[in-house]
Amino acid sequence: MTAGVRVVIALGGNAMTGPDGTATPAAQTEAIGRAMAHVARVVAGGHEVVITHGNGPQVGNLLVKNELAAHVVPPVALDWCGAQTQATIGFTVLDSLEAELARLDRRDRVAALVTRTLVSLDDTAFARPSKPIGRYLPREQAQVLVDHGETWEDRGARGWRRVVASPEPLEVLDAPALLALLGAGYVVVAAGGGGIPVARGADGALRGVGAVVDKDLTAALLATAIGAEVLVIATDVEHASVGFGTPSERPLGRVPLTELERYAGAGAFASGSMGPKVEAAMRFVRHGGRHAVITSLERITEAVDGEAGTVVADPAYQTPATATEPGR
Amino acid sequence: MTAGVRVVIALGGNAMTGPDGTATPAAQTEAIGRAMAHVARVVAGGHEVVITHGNGPQVGNLLVKNELAAHVVPPVALDWCGAQTQATIGFTVLDSLEAELARLDRRDRVAALVTRTLVSLDDTAFARPSKPIGRYLPREQAQVLVDHGETWEDRGARGWRRVVASPEPLEVLDAPALLALLGAGYVVVAAGGGGIPVARGADGALRGVGAVVDKDLTAALLATAIGAEVLVIATDVEHASVGFGTPSERPLGRVPLTELERYAGAGAFASGSMGPKVEAAMRFVRHGGRHAVITSLERITEAVDGEAGTVVADPAYQTPATATEPGR
Repeated sequence: MTAGVRVVIALGGNAMTGPDGTATPAAQTEAIGRAMAHVARVVAGGHEVVITHGNGPQVGNLLVKNELAAHVVPPVALDWCGAQTQATIGFTVLDSLEAELARLDRRDRVAALVTRTLVSLDDTAFARPSKPIGRYLPREQAQVLVDHGETWEDRGARGWRRVVASPEPLEVLDAPALLALLGAGYVVVAAGGGGIPVARGADGALRGVGAVVDKDLTAALLATAIGAEVLVIATDVEHASVGFGTPSERPLGRVPLTELERYAGAGAFASGSMGPKVEAAMRFVRHGGRHAVITSLERITEAVDGEAGTVVADPAYQTPATATEPGR
Repeated sequence: MTAGVRVVIALGGNAMTGPDGTATPAAQTEAIGRAMAHVARVVAGGHEVVITHGNGPQVGNLLVKNELAAHVVPPVALDWCGAQTQATIGFTVLDSLEAELARLDRRDRVAALVTRTLVSLDDTAFARPSKPIGRYLPREQAQVLVDHGETWEDRGARGWRRVVASPEPLEVLDAPALLALLGAGYVVVAAGGGGIPVARGADGALRGVGAVVDKDLTAALLATAIGAEVLVIATDVEHASVGFGTPSERPLGRVPLTELERYAGAGAFASGSMGPKVEAAMRFVRHGGRHAVITSLERITEAVDGEAGTVVADPAYQTPATATEPGR
């Protein structure tokens, strides 16, 4: 075990739903409990831990509610849906994590922050919505929503699916509050679902925008902003692989940044799934992180020490003089 | 202007909706903007400010969505509904407050905390649900929901309405995190909707429970826990009144705790509206607060100084040696 480090753990949406992807409150609570057993072990390892998480299945549910109640209750945009999941997942994580820490005879303090992520209204993503979200619908039903201004795409046999803007995260606006809590010894849940996307209007004021920010890219930005040494991206496979799904598939273990950049440049990772995770890992290491790891939830304790999963590091990395100084 | 004090401002649900009670996202955002113009002036007065808020109309909307989408998406209980509103109102408050502070040439930091409130499963409120929430329905439609285990009451001409448990708030579990943020100079939004109700099970672990905690009672508990000097309960009237709605109606200005206790004991305040506000004000002053004020949103700046609204104080109050010491 290395000495305690500051680590951001990004949990995939799969860590928040039942085995078959069900997102009932009971299934979510149970899944979060399982995930927190692993996170608690990282905390017990003496590390400063920030937890962030996806929210795809949860937002999918909220969109259905929006749609089916629209004749009675005004629908809310994606910024509001994202916010809603930060609090439901957030408090469930707090309850579960406290219970798992108690099992390890620890009384660490935990807190969940409502977190906004700055995006730009000039981001080209707003002109070209591309991130698929929510349920599949038959063409006729999708057409009604297209007539209401939404963008839906024909996804073949499963039907049509809504696509939304996924702009670049520019700044985790509530990172300073997170640092204040970390400094006071808290394990902090923050930036769920990539953060609530807000943009600055012509008057300089921030307002929520209907979009979805990639949670792994936000996790990397957040990890850099708070001076984390390690970023762990927990997913449902133990390693990122090149040649995924082909006979020449090869899982990646410890991989230098430059080598991973070559694979990514050659299109080795799927844009909708492993691509953003690899991109997030590379960004974090480029901006001075010690290492980023992509692995399964079950391996996150070893991952913090760089001893499991796909470990991305810059061979030129040097331990900073003050490892806890933010914003290096 | 007195020297800066620590103050908890509790905003009513009316401060979060349109003039006619509409709770569209646009109406909520606009109303919150108006409210934050007043809150920003309190912050600019040099006070340490904690903002809490109601969520009645917002939870009402979520319950309708639950109901109308129940055949496709699992409904969520009241703890989840409350959590959802903490984050949507929370981030909108952050955006609006930052904008209003900027107008006053201030750059105070703001943060919103997901906040849990401890309740007891032994609270008699669970056996006798009494707090009306959500929309009115015709008897036949209400009966369907009664058959699903909900409690609905005949409210006369307007129809039937759901009643839920409103247990006593015992502890604001995330108050220590709030104190850490306050200590770092933040204006903090917390305990929205009275906090997410959680209870300790037989195994000692906390879990959310389907209930609604009175937001003013939680505000009083929170204000005491963080050692606030002042509690301001903002509502839609400038004063609490005795004989409300009668020819002998008399608005209360500065009123000693013991006098207010007499009025309350004689049933002078309506249980569903002014009653809990008066009760919250009395509790806060009994537990050592300098003064509690019930007034309109427009008067909160003067209220902090005890110069507007119904000001409840204990004549025996003595300024504590260290005014910022928590939990006195």
